Amino acid sequence: MEIKFTWPQGFQSGATHAGFKADQQLDFGWLVSDVPAVAAGVYTKNQFQAAPTQYTRSLIQKGQTLQALVINSGNANSFTGQPGLDNAAQSGHLVAEKLNISSDLVGVASTGVIGKQMPMDKFKDGLAKLTLTSQSQLPEAILTTDTHSKKTCHALTIDGKTVTITGFAKGSGMIHPNMGTTLGFIATDAKIEGSLLQDLLRELIQSSFNQITVDGCMSTNDMVVVLANGQAQNQTLTAKHPEFVSFKKALQTVLINLAKMVAADGEGANKLIEAQVQNAANPVEANQVAKAIVGSNLIKAMLFGEDGNWGRIVQAIGQTQAQLNPNQLDIQIGGIPLVKNSLTVPVDQAALHQILATDKIIITVNLHCGEAQGMAWGCDLTYQYVEINAAYEG
Amino acid sequence: MEIKFTWPQGFQSGATHAGFKADQQLDFGWLVSDVPAVAAGVYTKNQFQAAPTQYTRSLIQKGQTLQALVINSGNANSFTGQPGLDNAAQSGHLVAEKLNISSDLVGVASTGVIGKQMPMDKFKDGLAKLTLTSQSQLPEAILTTDTHSKKTCHALTIDGKTVTITGFAKGSGMIHPNMGTTLGFIATDAKIEGSLLQDLLRELIQSSFNQITVDGCMSTNDMVVVLANGQAQNQTLTAKHPEFVSFKKALQTVLINLAKMVAADGEGANKLIEAQVQNAANPVEANQVAKAIVGSNLIKAMLFGEDGNWGRIVQAIGQTQAQLNPNQLDIQIGGIPLVKNSLTVPVDQAALHQILATDKIIITVNLHCGEAQGMAWGCDLTYQYVEINAAYEG
Repeated sequence: MEIKFTWPQGFQSGATHAGFKADQQLDFGWLVSDVPAVAAGVYTKNQFQAAPTQYTRSLIQKGQTLQALVINSGNANSFTGQPGLDNAAQSGHLVAEKLNISSDLVGVASTGVIGKQMPMDKFKDGLAKLTLTSQSQLPEAILTTDTHSKKTCHALTIDGKTVTITGFAKGSGMIHPNMGTTLGFIATDAKIEGSLLQDLLRELIQSSFNQITVDGCMSTNDMVVVLANGQAQNQTLTAKHPEFVSFKKALQTVLINLAKMVAADGEGANKLIEAQVQNAANPVEANQVAKAIVGSNLIKAMLFGEDGNWGRIVQAIGQTQAQLNPNQLDIQIGGIPLVKNSLTVPVDQAALHQILATDKIIITVNLHCGEAQGMAWGCDLTYQYVEINAAYEG
Repeated sequence: MEIKFTWPQGFQSGATHAGFKADQQLDFGWLVSDVPAVAAGVYTKNQFQAAPTQYTRSLIQKGQTLQALVINSGNANSFTGQPGLDNAAQSGHLVAEKLNISSDLVGVASTGVIGKQMPMDKFKDGLAKLTLTSQSQLPEAILTTDTHSKKTCHALTIDGKTVTITGFAKGSGMIHPNMGTTLGFIATDAKIEGSLLQDLLRELIQSSFNQITVDGCMSTNDMVVVLANGQAQNQTLTAKHPEFVSFKKALQTVLINLAKMVAADGEGANKLIEAQVQNAANPVEANQVAKAIVGSNLIKAMLFGEDGNWGRIVQAIGQTQAQLNPNQLDIQIGGIPLVKNSLTVPVDQAALHQILATDKIIITVNLHCGEAQGMAWGCDLTYQYVEINAAYEG
């Protein structure tokens, strides 16, 4: 059940302006658990993985446990060589010192301009100002070109205990995650086995964050981390726990909600585009076709123009390697059939234009090749996207 | 040697307005050889290959010989089912009848809107008006959103005879060829073995048309066809002919010239972007990295804004699977070093901005992993690209 934003039991956060960004904007924050939490993560597949991404990945792989995450926007600490790695490690150590915990328990994440060293004096100034509160400013502090923060909160009952799952994420350019993703963080007070949490995240990321694209560009800093501190006092979740499936569904909802928020707030976007692929030969191909549709510049520009030129949807589907049935393709936009059995359907243009004028466009495609389903999310391509990226210095 | 535009010996052409496009624009034409010509072709890998593309491919595969090509713009005859295939075949038959040659010798090509049946009455009206001349209007007749025609002409001497190679092509959206490509046609009077010409085209397309991208969208209609009618009377070119290498180089130049013209006139483009990759582990990876750079929306928008944010070049390179050396990457824009051994280089910003203001931007990347080179071409991402594609109905 979706609930009003709150941190799960035993989590606190803080945010401040450290000076990575101008104009007194929030650009620095932390998420801290009262006790060490089971941790799982997925990370970008970009070969130039940024220093904080490498650092946090190695910590989680080693111990599957974190107690705190420190996050900044305004500087990605990416492509910064050994000094960058040293700065990421030092960041973790400074936070550990302030919290009086082991530095192995502090993850680090950064987003912003690539290729500039972290100004560690600003980091220290910021850290001195950070406090622990129950407030919800942290999701604001991690934004770059986002127009608003992305957060979602879900509650469910396990062993009669209330378990809360709270997620937050950022966009909104260089968004084309693979395995890892843009920055996304999920805190829960559920008690769960570490390896199970890692498996679960790896599985669910495929149909959530890995199914969004804003511009086809995979960031060097992508990561999604889940912390589970067990403070809900449920029986430890294993794959056999009778309520494991409910937990999995709730976590999936949180991941998909965040992914959709990132897509809808893509740079310059006016509209969320959702592609629903039905009856693909298998789930991988269903996802592949869905992502090809939301990733097409031509479709993105066409939907900005509120135009229903479905030939571009055919083009995008045909560009994939998915199994297709050339004589049995159905395409709908917003529930209005445009193509049925690979033939044009007469369309009520007034009704179609009414749908194209809304801010969420659903493209449904039936491949008639099997029984698998897939979804993906993206946004339209607008003048503002070009404007933002013609002069982004971070 | 590049020469003024002319058709090779024994080729004539014609162009007219048949009515596929509005406003009396040229939209229909043909290229005809006096005698049957050796023919080679490469075609789109989009799974929804258009009817004329399927039809011409099958003709060339069967006989490696064509005498005429009929080409229209304004209607792609793509995703049109069996009626579309029938119309492509009928188009070839009608042309063969008028020329009094076998219909197996007439290739068909179309470009324009996807999903509409060919108006065969317009085809017939157009065909009635077509004549054979030495004029150069045909390259105009195949354009869609192109701002100007793309043609190039090269001459060389083989066995003491002058051989001419004349190429023309169209862009300018849905450009991301793979194996085949956007429409490109090359006529030559060279005498050459059919299978050798096919092998040559397949090889040279990889480093020319397959290395351009405008928007990442692979068309359903892409094809490049070469006709060689032997009227230059040279000894038949085989792989062992002493001047085969000169012919190969000339054909490569023609293909690359056309490819660059298509990229530079990409929809809405202000600038040609050329990526030069040096010292890659192998040629495939060199081409892959070059194409990733020219294909990045973020880099394309940045160059429209005349901005030199090289972090985006790092991001694009890292997104590939190519072998990289994280501590030894060099990046230059227009010959100005921005990154050396993976470290920022102090830059004369005035000089950089002067280069970024020109209409041809060369990005040079040294991977320090081997000895292979690769190039790719694209264009900037502009407001006009969005504008054109927000309302393209063809």
